[in-house]
Amino acid sequence: MNIGGRAYRTIWVGDDTQSVEIIDQTRLPHEVAVARLTSLEDTARAILTMQVRGAPLIGAAAAYGLCLALRRDASDAALDAAITLLARQRPTAVNLRWALSQVADAVRPLAPQARAAAAYRIAAEICDADVAANRAIGEHGGRLIRDIAARKGAGARVNVLTHCNAGWLATVDRGTALAPVYEAHDGGIAVHVWVDETRPRNQGAALTAFELGAHGVPHTIIVDNAGGHLMQQGLVDLCVVGADRVTGSGDVANKIGTYLKALAAADNSIPFYVACPHSTIDWALSAGSAIPIEERGAEEILTIRGRTGEGAVVSIAIAAPGSPARNDAFDVTPARLVTALITERGVCAASRDGLTALYPDRPQSDP
Amino acid sequence: MNIGGRAYRTIWVGDDTQSVEIIDQTRLPHEVAVARLTSLEDTARAILTMQVRGAPLIGAAAAYGLCLALRRDASDAALDAAITLLARQRPTAVNLRWALSQVADAVRPLAPQARAAAAYRIAAEICDADVAANRAIGEHGGRLIRDIAARKGAGARVNVLTHCNAGWLATVDRGTALAPVYEAHDGGIAVHVWVDETRPRNQGAALTAFELGAHGVPHTIIVDNAGGHLMQQGLVDLCVVGADRVTGSGDVANKIGTYLKALAAADNSIPFYVACPHSTIDWALSAGSAIPIEERGAEEILTIRGRTGEGAVVSIAIAAPGSPARNDAFDVTPARLVTALITERGVCAASRDGLTALYPDRPQSDP
Repeated sequence: MNIGGRAYRTIWVGDDTQSVEIIDQTRLPHEVAVARLTSLEDTARAILTMQVRGAPLIGAAAAYGLCLALRRDASDAALDAAITLLARQRPTAVNLRWALSQVADAVRPLAPQARAAAAYRIAAEICDADVAANRAIGEHGGRLIRDIAARKGAGARVNVLTHCNAGWLATVDRGTALAPVYEAHDGGIAVHVWVDETRPRNQGAALTAFELGAHGVPHTIIVDNAGGHLMQQGLVDLCVVGADRVTGSGDVANKIGTYLKALAAADNSIPFYVACPHSTIDWALSAGSAIPIEERGAEEILTIRGRTGEGAVVSIAIAAPGSPARNDAFDVTPARLVTALITERGVCAASRDGLTALYPDRPQSDP
Repeated sequence: MNIGGRAYRTIWVGDDTQSVEIIDQTRLPHEVAVARLTSLEDTARAILTMQVRGAPLIGAAAAYGLCLALRRDASDAALDAAITLLARQRPTAVNLRWALSQVADAVRPLAPQARAAAAYRIAAEICDADVAANRAIGEHGGRLIRDIAARKGAGARVNVLTHCNAGWLATVDRGTALAPVYEAHDGGIAVHVWVDETRPRNQGAALTAFELGAHGVPHTIIVDNAGGHLMQQGLVDLCVVGADRVTGSGDVANKIGTYLKALAAADNSIPFYVACPHSTIDWALSAGSAIPIEERGAEEILTIRGRTGEGAVVSIAIAAPGSPARNDAFDVTPARLVTALITERGVCAASRDGLTALYPDRPQSDP
């Protein structure tokens, strides 16, 4: 997608053909900065500190982390150690583990001297496949928006509510939840997005609003508390969110607060869609309660970064001094609250039957 | 209640027996500052800018605003103009209009020269009645917490989730939703409070955490997104919130986001209580959808105040530059999601029958 007229992906191999470059998302929306990763440890840190975030993107980043590890030491032991290190940076998103398996399965049969080059090829394929999957999700989800637009009639805009950032910044390009929005907007549908700010890290206000604004999509930031009220007022036509892990039976782990919006959507008979490529599906799990939920540091709640009037980016303390905080990063929305999943193969019920109908041939390498 | 060992109410008449002093809540938790109001206009501004906030407290403040107005001009015209000015500062909380009626009904039959002194007496009575009502709410609600503690058994703490600030800072003293918590804590029950930060103005993280900490009540700040997940995890025993207006049929207008927590409580079979004195009940309204919902400025979402590492209090911009925001301040929780109302007369069903049983004699001056 474009920032200031220049096309970007969120991750790419540098001009030296070895290092990996990323848009440093901890510095958005205040500045657009590129960070260079030259080692496994750089990559692990970028994932942990959320310089890269979003389930599909941390999968791609992890794949490149293995590339950088194998450049230094292509032994089985080094490969195993790198996988262990990268996998433990973020426990909830299954794409991370999926991408590590994709690379590991491909390089393990090879002689060590051939492994790094093969890993770079697989990582590039993962990136390209992510973009293709997201384009397909955009087409399938775009039709849902187009249908609502047709029902509302000419002149009425379609109001989409989304939580967190599952836009192109959460993927290699194009996004999952926002792909249908871009597809509809680019196709001339009048679409407007309610952007949940998504405390504590404000990926909505910082990233979703930034990328929608850069693409010219009308949007309005709201606090996470507001979505239920807007639904009661008839101001939301559909919700679309991404996912960090979808169980084989359709339960959805996604950014903390997703469950509350799904409850409100159900209470107001508003469709609630979850956009996810197959790499987000954890076939082995049935119950969402089995998904490990990452707990992050309290400082993400107690302090916040922003721009002063003079343009300096500073961090300030916002809560009562001395009060503790707890920071669960994700919650689980049960399948019963999900109207449908939007995958690269089409739209399906959030159930084992629904998923199996779309993926009768699910890849052996999928978890 | 105490701050640093000194007993405070949130509002009181100054040593000069005329001016009105308040704790300036826009400066908490970063500093405890007292502001002096010497005119009607001072009071209107204090209500609008939320130097005083919380439905019961803005009622008390409005009563004192009339006192200050009548000191300057005790004519009928001045009285009417003062009521009009004060009533329009905040549209949602009904206590504001209730308190204005209390004062106006008492002073209107009097000769102008007697009105100001009478108004000060009524305002003081409103304040004392608020404290008494809150103590009674504390006793009735405290029993609910005590019952849960008994059921959980020795050693287990009772986890209360609250939204916004309905503590002593939202009232003249003692609080509505937090009165039962103080009652239980002071009575030796192990109680812990999950404090929703309550974006955009963060009354939870700033005020509720501050006052619970000052009183020594164990608590943990969470983002507004987290409550549903904590309920799913079995970490919430009951929810207690305040109200800005309760209709005669039990619908509850309260801080934006309350509805989402009520949905989650219902989905997890957790009791959801609303604490409200009779001055919060709008007998004339049945449907919550008829309650006017205040929309405040976008800057409350797009910027935030806090302390730098050097201790300076600054305001910073936190969202993508140029993105608009919408700021509805309240939402309506339908009565079907409210387990019960906790009033100064006892606990009742959130319904016209429930309320009428407790208030068969409802005061003629109530709205």
